[in-house]
This record gives sequence, structure tokens and C-alpha cells, in this order.
Amino acid sequence: MYEIEGPPPLRRPAELVIAALSPVVTPERLQRIEEVVAGRTDSLVVVLDRIADPHNSSAVLRSADAFGVQNVHAIVAEHGFVASSGVAKGTHRWLDVVRHETAEACARRLKESGYAIYVAAMGGEASPADLREVPRLAVVFGNEHRGVSSEMRALADGTFSIPMRGFVESLNVSVAAAITIQVLAGEGRAPLDPARRRELMARFLMNSVKNADQVIDQFAGND
Amino acid sequence: MYEIEGPPPLRRPAELVIAALSPVVTPERLQRIEEVVAGRTDSLVVVLDRIADPHNSSAVLRSADAFGVQNVHAIVAEHGFVASSGVAKGTHRWLDVVRHETAEACARRLKESGYAIYVAAMGGEASPADLREVPRLAVVFGNEHRGVSSEMRALADGTFSIPMRGFVESLNVSVAAAITIQVLAGEGRAPLDPARRRELMARFLMNSVKNADQVIDQFAGND
Repeated sequence: MYEIEGPPPLRRPAELVIAALSPVVTPERLQRIEEVVAGRTDSLVVVLDRIADPHNSSAVLRSADAFGVQNVHAIVAEHGFVASSGVAKGTHRWLDVVRHETAEACARRLKESGYAIYVAAMGGEASPADLREVPRLAVVFGNEHRGVSSEMRALADGTFSIPMRGFVESLNVSVAAAITIQVLAGEGRAPLDPARRRELMARFLMNSVKNADQVIDQFAGND
Repeated sequence: MYEIEGPPPLRRPAELVIAALSPVVTPERLQRIEEVVAGRTDSLVVVLDRIADPHNSSAVLRSADAFGVQNVHAIVAEHGFVASSGVAKGTHRWLDVVRHETAEACARRLKESGYAIYVAAMGGEASPADLREVPRLAVVFGNEHRGVSSEMRALADGTFSIPMRGFVESLNVSVAAAITIQVLAGEGRAPLDPARRRELMARFLMNSVKNADQVIDQFAGND
């Protein structure tokens, strides 16, 4: 288990990092990074509102990565925002994880960035598919026992739930998040703008190269 | 945590159980049971091939119930087929859980019942959506570390994987199962035949009424 922190800031210009590190990775790796960046979006954000079980946090991070959601916001639970290392497999290194102390701080930040906030709730008004047309959308998943906090609900634009037809009235939170992400990510979501794409390209290259800083220093010196 | 067993056999005629217990539950409960039965299918089966983590087993049972998959087959791991009580919430009582000691026994039983077997595997040939037209379909999910067993793969009709576009190469198994079920269950799947529907109706009523056997005895005596 480990505490999930946000990504380290890029301390060099993205162009320099890309120029220095692209020749160092294999062509296959470079292509993979380009494909992942091309599949990423900022227009759908996942918010975890005090998730308690590290298995669940980790599984959500894996699903976000798998379906192209770059930004995961977490309102930190009493015990922190913790991932179980086996399940997350270091996924947070490929994401922008943003930590907040309170739901208000998180909601304010998202609204300032133009996101509509929809919280997962039993008997929610919309289905995930109904939210496909929302251009900038934050979907919030709450604590396994208490659900989404009342502070977050008060600031949200609406509620949603996944259509179900069994006896159990809710899905496991990591399952609910994955299905929601899978329905809402993909075709139709806005791709990243060119500057953001270069930034991610540079960060993913940094993650992929050992002693990346040294390689960049050398490249810059030789230039 | 508890060991998941299959459903107790119905020891009375379904018609008698339904006649005796329908008047005892609330109209809302009766309607709910009828809706769940109408949404169930036998034409899609989920197979868990030695899943290790009780959280995962439990989450899959919840997803099966939620999306109308009545039959879950489990090849029992060394430590049994165990659910974590918090996560499963007793879901197995609403499902037909079938336990097998070996993958061969499971595959043979499924093939005798006319199911095509597709195993989840990295780089699988099909996507879940490609399998929508398979009339009787069993989807197999393997152990978190070792994947689907070689015995099961040898007997399978094909492989599938969920299209992904991130760095992590696999999803959490309960997430993969849920997305697969959600894509494949629902519209287009064959509903249950009338006899099977009555059987489930009777079993679900048995689950819903305290001292159901006594109520049925009394009903039969008074008839």
C-alpha cells in the first residue's frame, strides 16, 4: 500500500524533454506513448469522494488509465488516499491525480474549470449514457458505506445511476466507476489540445526512461 | 467471509410455492421479483476460474445479479470459493452458483449444455461486443495472477479482451467481468422459458418470506 500523490511537475520545457528522450526509447514504446496520449481526454474527470478501500481506489485508477481518463480527483479520506500496490500497478504515474482536503475545495476547482458535476447515487436522475453530451463532465463516486458526501451533493449539477435489474441495489464502487467511464470515455470526447498533448508526451517519456534527468542534461549540453 | 454454495433445490412444486407465498409479500416486493425474473437470462453464463480474492468473487456476483446473469460457474480455488460478506451482500442467494473441482468438469458441463466458451485473455481475438451474436455464451475470467487456466483455454472456443488504450495491460478482474457482462447482457439475450421463470419466481419468493416452509404447509393444508 502506498499514498497516491499527484504527478511531479515537469521542470523542463516539454519540447526539450521530447527531443532528448524520444531517441532513447524503443520505436514500439514511442508509438505506445503516442497512442496513449492520442486516446486521453481532459473532458471527463473521475472524482473519488473519500473512498475507503485501497482495492477500490486502485481499480478505479486502472480503469481511468485503461479508458483514457487523464484526471482523477480525490477527496482524501481520514486515512489518506491510498492504493494497494498489487492492484494499481503504479497506474497513478500515468495520470493526473489531484488531491483535495474537502469536497467543497474539489467542487469549486472543478466548477472554475467549467465541469458539470454529477454524483453517483441510488435512484439517480440520469444514466451514464444520458450524460454523453455534457462537454466537460466530472462524475463523482462516494464512500463504500456513506456514498457521496452531502457537501458534494449540495454543489453537484445532478445525480446518475447505472441501470440495473437485480435484487442488489448498488454495484461495487470500482465496478460502477469502470462502467461509467467505459460508457462515457472513448469516441465523442474531446481530445487534448496540442500543448497538453506535448506535456503528457514529455511526462510519459520521463516515466519511461531511467535517469531521464541525466539524459536530458547530456542532450542539452551537447546541443 | 463465507463459502459460496449453490442454491438449495426447490423441494415443492413451483406452482404451489408461488400460490402460497405471493399473497404473503407486499405488492411492491412481488412486482420487484417479477421484474427481476423477467430480466434474467440463462443464455449468458459467467465462469470464475480459481479467483483468489473474495472481494473480486463478491463483486462479480453483484454484477451478475445487477445485469441479469442467473448462472455463475466457479472452479474452486485451493481455499474454496469464498465471498466477502460486505461486498456480496448475500447476492449468491439470487443466483445459480455452480461449483466445479476442475476446469475440465466445468467446460464439459457447459459444452453439454450448448455453450460456446470464450476466455478473457490479454490480446484476445474478439471484443465483448463481437460476441453479442453468440446465442449461448460462457465468458471465463481467470485468477488474478495466473489468468485463465491452460486446461480451460485448451477447451475454449476462443479468447476475448476488452479494448483498452492506456499503459496498464489489464483491468481488475471484477471490473473486466462487469464490463463484459454489461456489454453482453440486456436486450437481445434470450429470456427464460416459462418453466424456468416459475422456478426462479418460487425460489425468490422462498428467499423473501420468513418461515416460508411453514407458510406453504399451512397453505397446502388449508387448500
